[in-house]
Amino acid sequence: MNAPVQITSAANPVLKEIRKAVQRGGLTADGLAVCETLRLLGDVLPGPARVEAVLVSEERRVEMERLLTGRDEVRVLVAPEPLVAAVASVEASQGVLALVRPREWSLADVVTESSLILVLDGVQDPGNAGAMLRLAEAFGASGVVAMKGTVNLFNPKAIRASAGSVFRVPLVSGLEAAALLTALQGVPCYAALPDAGAVAVDRVDWARPAAFVIGNEGHGVSEALRLHAEPITIPTAGVESLNASTAAAVILYEAARQRRAKAIR
Amino acid sequence: MNAPVQITSAANPVLKEIRKAVQRGGLTADGLAVCETLRLLGDVLPGPARVEAVLVSEERRVEMERLLTGRDEVRVLVAPEPLVAAVASVEASQGVLALVRPREWSLADVVTESSLILVLDGVQDPGNAGAMLRLAEAFGASGVVAMKGTVNLFNPKAIRASAGSVFRVPLVSGLEAAALLTALQGVPCYAALPDAGAVAVDRVDWARPAAFVIGNEGHGVSEALRLHAEPITIPTAGVESLNASTAAAVILYEAARQRRAKAIR
Repeated sequence: MNAPVQITSAANPVLKEIRKAVQRGGLTADGLAVCETLRLLGDVLPGPARVEAVLVSEERRVEMERLLTGRDEVRVLVAPEPLVAAVASVEASQGVLALVRPREWSLADVVTESSLILVLDGVQDPGNAGAMLRLAEAFGASGVVAMKGTVNLFNPKAIRASAGSVFRVPLVSGLEAAALLTALQGVPCYAALPDAGAVAVDRVDWARPAAFVIGNEGHGVSEALRLHAEPITIPTAGVESLNASTAAAVILYEAARQRRAKAIR
Repeated sequence: MNAPVQITSAANPVLKEIRKAVQRGGLTADGLAVCETLRLLGDVLPGPARVEAVLVSEERRVEMERLLTGRDEVRVLVAPEPLVAAVASVEASQGVLALVRPREWSLADVVTESSLILVLDGVQDPGNAGAMLRLAEAFGASGVVAMKGTVNLFNPKAIRASAGSVFRVPLVSGLEAAALLTALQGVPCYAALPDAGAVAVDRVDWARPAAFVIGNEGHGVSEALRLHAEPITIPTAGVESLNASTAAAVILYEAARQRRAKAIR
């Protein structure tokens, strides 16, 4: 490990850049994601994202040097605890904050021969979005597409809710409907809609390549995608609709179940 | 509708009783549940719980009188907005608060010929518990059992998260393991455990009567129930475990799917 850099002032340019990224809810100007807990650092270290720097309080320094043994590529910045706490978005700062360069993915990583693509269409809550990234990884989705107007998936809150999945699941952001439909090349695209005529989720053949859309928490799926997606529904009784991440969990589970059943046959 | 009762002081005994119930996170001493939003009132009015009284701000009074037309049994208490806001737990009080008498259920309502029973074993977060009550209703569970040590299901936050399901799903609270096992009379009891040897959730026959246990957010299922439950698992890759309400959603969905498929055959 290289010698740690000491930071003594809140005016330090690295601290200022982290603070801006946390406030904006996205990457730093240099394209780095802010990971705010020790646990998250542990989740991210094995890759494929690259931990470039760690900001750590004096109190946590020895523990951090031990964790980073043999990782000379990670810069260590040591600062007094109050300076670390001042840039963090979590209420109880743990005195640890990592700067991580996400791997860059293209649509070719997401749209594969066995595509199972989660499309986030205007999801606004970073906690919701992060939880769905985690579910996408848990149930073996090939990737995630965040349409234009969706919350930044590298919002520190989304990163935390994803428990690091945001760095492991292939993902592409900022797409318009036309670009998505072109990329899908005929792969069927479903949308969870509260539509009486919609097909039940377990009547869809998920063993084939497929994409499905989860819409905005309030307004649902955008018109541009609704026009091109086949409506599906999760049969429920007496309850209007499930929340976005619960709906995503059930659809991903059903797809994974069908694929497992086919593999066993 | 009877003539509304005017409340002018924060020392009014009804207000004091509501405040205590909200702080305690449960029913009032008189056994009434506190429902804090207009939407929730709309969800609850059709029954089977009985709305006994509504506390409403001066500004909301006319709207409320219209909503309660023909419902002479509901007492209306009118108070200045700040007094209503002071007893509510929600940050932005809507100036409406209903006092609702839940229907009383027994184990015979929960354990039926087509039992699908959700057992909450030490779940602590009222939002989590409420969300699972909602899922239980959505997927047609026969009822919910809250073991001793589980958060009060009539905590105003749990009521809100349940969107009124807490009043419609048969539920029994405060049971010990021995009492549950006796009541189940041989109905198989499963527990979602991160156990390598556990049976996958889709290999269980859910068309038969069944119960399943969701444990505490941190410590999981209690030892007393673990000894008597068959471990099941939701197959996932690369992610440790799903959170409690997502696991409940997937298990309930799978059970409902199998029951639908059998009904169609």
